[in-house]
Amino acid sequence: MLIRREDGAGGKYMAEFLKKHIISRFGDNRLGEISLADMDDSSDFDGYVFTTDSYVVSPPIFRGGSIGSLAVCGTANDLAVMGAKPYAMSLALIIQEGFKVSDFEKIMNDVERWVKELDVKLITGDTKVVSANVEIIANTSGIGIRNSALDHNISVVKEYRDYPYNWVRDCGLREGDAIIVSGCVADHAVAIMLSREFDFDIDVQSDVYPVWLFVKEALEVGGITAMKDPTRGGLANALNELAEKSGVGIYIEEERIPIREEVKGFCEVLGLDPLSMANEGKVVMGVVEDMAEDVLKALHKAGQKYAEIIGYATSEFEEVVVETEIGTKKVLPPPTADPIPRVC
Amino acid sequence: MLIRREDGAGGKYMAEFLKKHIISRFGDNRLGEISLADMDDSSDFDGYVFTTDSYVVSPPIFRGGSIGSLAVCGTANDLAVMGAKPYAMSLALIIQEGFKVSDFEKIMNDVERWVKELDVKLITGDTKVVSANVEIIANTSGIGIRNSALDHNISVVKEYRDYPYNWVRDCGLREGDAIIVSGCVADHAVAIMLSREFDFDIDVQSDVYPVWLFVKEALEVGGITAMKDPTRGGLANALNELAEKSGVGIYIEEERIPIREEVKGFCEVLGLDPLSMANEGKVVMGVVEDMAEDVLKALHKAGQKYAEIIGYATSEFEEVVVETEIGTKKVLPPPTADPIPRVC
Repeated sequence: MLIRREDGAGGKYMAEFLKKHIISRFGDNRLGEISLADMDDSSDFDGYVFTTDSYVVSPPIFRGGSIGSLAVCGTANDLAVMGAKPYAMSLALIIQEGFKVSDFEKIMNDVERWVKELDVKLITGDTKVVSANVEIIANTSGIGIRNSALDHNISVVKEYRDYPYNWVRDCGLREGDAIIVSGCVADHAVAIMLSREFDFDIDVQSDVYPVWLFVKEALEVGGITAMKDPTRGGLANALNELAEKSGVGIYIEEERIPIREEVKGFCEVLGLDPLSMANEGKVVMGVVEDMAEDVLKALHKAGQKYAEIIGYATSEFEEVVVETEIGTKKVLPPPTADPIPRVC
Repeated sequence: MLIRREDGAGGKYMAEFLKKHIISRFGDNRLGEISLADMDDSSDFDGYVFTTDSYVVSPPIFRGGSIGSLAVCGTANDLAVMGAKPYAMSLALIIQEGFKVSDFEKIMNDVERWVKELDVKLITGDTKVVSANVEIIANTSGIGIRNSALDHNISVVKEYRDYPYNWVRDCGLREGDAIIVSGCVADHAVAIMLSREFDFDIDVQSDVYPVWLFVKEALEVGGITAMKDPTRGGLANALNELAEKSGVGIYIEEERIPIREEVKGFCEVLGLDPLSMANEGKVVMGVVEDMAEDVLKALHKAGQKYAEIIGYATSEFEEVVVETEIGTKKVLPPPTADPIPRVC
């Protein structure tokens, strides 16, 4: 039996692969409330959260960013969706022999830009050079810390119901919670495709961005019960994970999902579903109903002008159900894998 | 200008590359006493140490271990040489499409074995599948914690002199300290070469091993002033780093360096210097002179039967000087790069 592309592509097949080969061995490993088996965006220890991600995006420099921006923002985002402030980071690089030093410098410029913007400390690293045709691969691991915005958020949630978690968890969604997405979906995956060979005359940039910069504003309002960043597998994957882990259904109104016209058009032409395509600067969150409008306003004020309430959690069914723009209802299944390889 | 193999091969060229492209940007990043510019084996924050390493070894399964053993032991060793107990770990895998699942399982068996042996918790991970000819690449980041053995060690050192560090640092060596190596050198690199195409009829296994299991015994005796694990660039690189960072010279008696006869023979035939070749389960340490015999005994008792005092630190010169077996003296320069690519 051989490893298949879909074993590492986000989505349903990867989840099955991980359960069989990794979670079966280490699932019970935990130092706090979150074990590896929880497969949340980070795990916790002693009041910190810890996460890791490798980036294999091709091309490594693309419209709106580079593997350097992804490496910092992507890992910081996995901390931020726990409600944690990004604190410490590692950077491990694997560079193909013959890679241009000028391109390497562009990538490091992006690393430096976002490290400074986030005020995260890059304190440890590793560099290897190989002859394999990898261009450049980056791994970052991140450590996030508790902070007053997170504490405030959880205290607000607790005014409404029992919330037995110390972090914002992807299993925290309950019936009636509003579902908010922080901006237009699918920009990243489309920008990567456009940075390859496609000859489309449209201007789409990757949305790569450190979500902590606006998530902290939303936490300071409070009431966020669950959060994920919809990367590989896109919004469809994030919503299905939230629903499955929380044991609720999610009802979404398609016309409320923010998406750029040119992205929608590009996906229609190629037969791609924008809801399954990767984002790198967005969050999807559950918010207690009473607080949803206030959280939405905070997101708008923090620059996320396309943030929108796109639906709500329900106990009437267990799937993610989308009401289409023409009024029909359909189940939005978890993608089997991200449709685009090497997108992040 | 293009990235060269030696830019990521350990040794002098890599140090120059990192200073120019990474340390120049992030060198001042620190959360505790150790900054990225210190280029120690780990950096610290809030009473923890943090490190990262990517493993690109080829073949991924070799005599005496696999990339799975390296990924756990190698990163744990970078924590252990700070005097830290390995505590939490991440595992990020990049697997080539078509890699045999049975080989993947062998690798995961090794990960599981050493995770359990060390009682470290593997709490976060990532998996990507790519088509590039990488076989399998692993990154582990590790978090180590303070512990009573470390505290005892530092208190013993302070009985002899000022030691302004909270961790065992690679800059902590001072005139008169004994230099101890914990066992036979160069086994790992030779085992990797033998696992490739060489048709030598000798039995050498990789020494891959989590050094914490014996380092803690040495710390409990106390008096260790500096420590490194001699991986890429071997003993020669580790000794030169200790000397340079500590601002002392090191005098070594060649005949005291433990090395297997078959490893010595293999290296002689191929014209390789065993002192520049990688180890994956050894430490080299400086110890206050009065404590050196006791630390050595503790290492022997902890199973490191070839551990030996190989020399001492001196202020008479600034280099690493080796007295050869025939009585001549030569400077042992820092290797420009590890002679063998993809050895770890």
